[in-house]
Amino acid sequence: MNSTMEKPYVVGIDIGGTNTVFGIVDARGTILASGSIKTGSHEKAEDYVDEVCATLSQLIAANGGADKIKGIGIGAPNGNYYNGNIEFAPNLPWKGVIPLASMFEERLNIPTALTNDANAAAIGEMTYGAARGMKDFIMITLGTGVGSGIVINGQMVYGHDGFAGELGHSIIRRVNGRLCGCGRHGCLETYCSATGVARTAREFLTARTDPSMLRSISSEEITSKDVYDAAIQGDKLAQDIFEYTGTILGEALADFIAFSSPEAIVLFGGLAKAGDYIFKPVQKAIDDNVLAIFKGKTKLLMSELKDSDAAVLGASALGWELK
Amino acid sequence: MNSTMEKPYVVGIDIGGTNTVFGIVDARGTILASGSIKTGSHEKAEDYVDEVCATLSQLIAANGGADKIKGIGIGAPNGNYYNGNIEFAPNLPWKGVIPLASMFEERLNIPTALTNDANAAAIGEMTYGAARGMKDFIMITLGTGVGSGIVINGQMVYGHDGFAGELGHSIIRRVNGRLCGCGRHGCLETYCSATGVARTAREFLTARTDPSMLRSISSEEITSKDVYDAAIQGDKLAQDIFEYTGTILGEALADFIAFSSPEAIVLFGGLAKAGDYIFKPVQKAIDDNVLAIFKGKTKLLMSELKDSDAAVLGASALGWELK
Repeated sequence: MNSTMEKPYVVGIDIGGTNTVFGIVDARGTILASGSIKTGSHEKAEDYVDEVCATLSQLIAANGGADKIKGIGIGAPNGNYYNGNIEFAPNLPWKGVIPLASMFEERLNIPTALTNDANAAAIGEMTYGAARGMKDFIMITLGTGVGSGIVINGQMVYGHDGFAGELGHSIIRRVNGRLCGCGRHGCLETYCSATGVARTAREFLTARTDPSMLRSISSEEITSKDVYDAAIQGDKLAQDIFEYTGTILGEALADFIAFSSPEAIVLFGGLAKAGDYIFKPVQKAIDDNVLAIFKGKTKLLMSELKDSDAAVLGASALGWELK
Repeated sequence: MNSTMEKPYVVGIDIGGTNTVFGIVDARGTILASGSIKTGSHEKAEDYVDEVCATLSQLIAANGGADKIKGIGIGAPNGNYYNGNIEFAPNLPWKGVIPLASMFEERLNIPTALTNDANAAAIGEMTYGAARGMKDFIMITLGTGVGSGIVINGQMVYGHDGFAGELGHSIIRRVNGRLCGCGRHGCLETYCSATGVARTAREFLTARTDPSMLRSISSEEITSKDVYDAAIQGDKLAQDIFEYTGTILGEALADFIAFSSPEAIVLFGGLAKAGDYIFKPVQKAIDDNVLAIFKGKTKLLMSELKDSDAAVLGASALGWELK
């Protein structure tokens, strides 16, 4: 009997700054059972892992036991695939280097792998989503920041140190570029994240005098969601904000295409949900800026994973690769 | 008896705009025999291949016969690895799509692969040169243009269409960028190729008033070699040209590092020979611009292949991968 045949499930654990969600997933991407805890509920990583494992063990027992689980995949900020550690994650409660993969492996006795959240999203998309069957694609996650996961020759790109794929920190504006959280100026993330959209809104509202629904919101409180709500109600200034954002993103994507010539670029995250308001200017800026040899070749796709499930699915997809 | 053991040699063919050079190479990168013809000597690709094969057959016969040859590798502009074709190469005499790999394979009855010249240089460096044993590195060729070959997870990056790795056409200046031969503005190649250095020289000589040995050369005739000759004699303006060039190259490399986090970046070509005049500003610009997580991690190396041999060695290295 083939032992792989006996293991129809994987476990996905997504560790976010606020919540940790986890679930048991089958080969089609159905989440059979799931749970969550607050990431900040324990000062010590050991106690935190203990609590996740307590709930997870129950879920696993209720779904046929550990023998049914091929592997555990973890998505976490600053996760290093090569050693399974979280390294100096600024938004997590535990400082320094935390050997998270081996901590789970020891407690549950199931092979465990870990990578950063954007890489997990890319593997999820390749396993269950819009990039099924693709060997060359780039995943761009548009959230509070801009993350990326790159797949080349059917393999995740981790680089020599495990940290490759920081496309959100490509410099897209070298002159008067916006200050980034990383300390440099002009990173893609400062323009094309949700926070970047809010910054653009504040800039546009100051620089322009035309009426906008956004003027009724206190400048410091505007979110990308407000901009989206205004845009779909026909607010010209809000629509221009997306056009500005999409154009910059498209310019950056045109350069990424010259690097790895991907079959597709998949957009994921809150901003991607702005639909044509963001997709049209992105596509136009790619067409206007890409090298002739690549024109019209790379598909621009929206993630096919449901937002609420994507993080767990992405992390879980890592589990299929484990032996 | 193992048949691979019987095949100790490969053949490398480098097709340049002016000359075609070829040679028989052993596993250590020694060129046992070589020859060359003018690329433009025949209007029809068939006649050209016939002539190369005539000479090559003699060299092969003199070195133990076709049974000793594991494979033939060809490096050529616009070469597509996936199908072995040269596709619409502007600097070669044959127009349209030329199935060059199969034309050689038919005539010599030896497996043949083809890729573009910068990719061949990268494979050569990985097989015989500075990148031996590396799984993740980027080769930058600084010649008339700027080319690149990218290796990730030990594999050449060809992309979904065979044309990946056009880093010379990354946009490095979005405001008032120089017009590139590709029709766009601000490509890395317009600043960091030999031609780019000459353009910078003309700009500096016009914008500045300080004395320089370069002022004795007619502005339109200045080459990057002239700039180098002046720099090593202490000419400040010439040295500033290299600093300007190296700074822009380093800024671009910092972004490439965020993409694939390579163990090393290898510089090759005429400009790389300017030594510290170019290396120091490149290294400084990388350090000044790279994301903190990558700082000090990626080595900046000079190609270890002898200039005169590099093209044939690079092409030949493809031959070892053939079955």
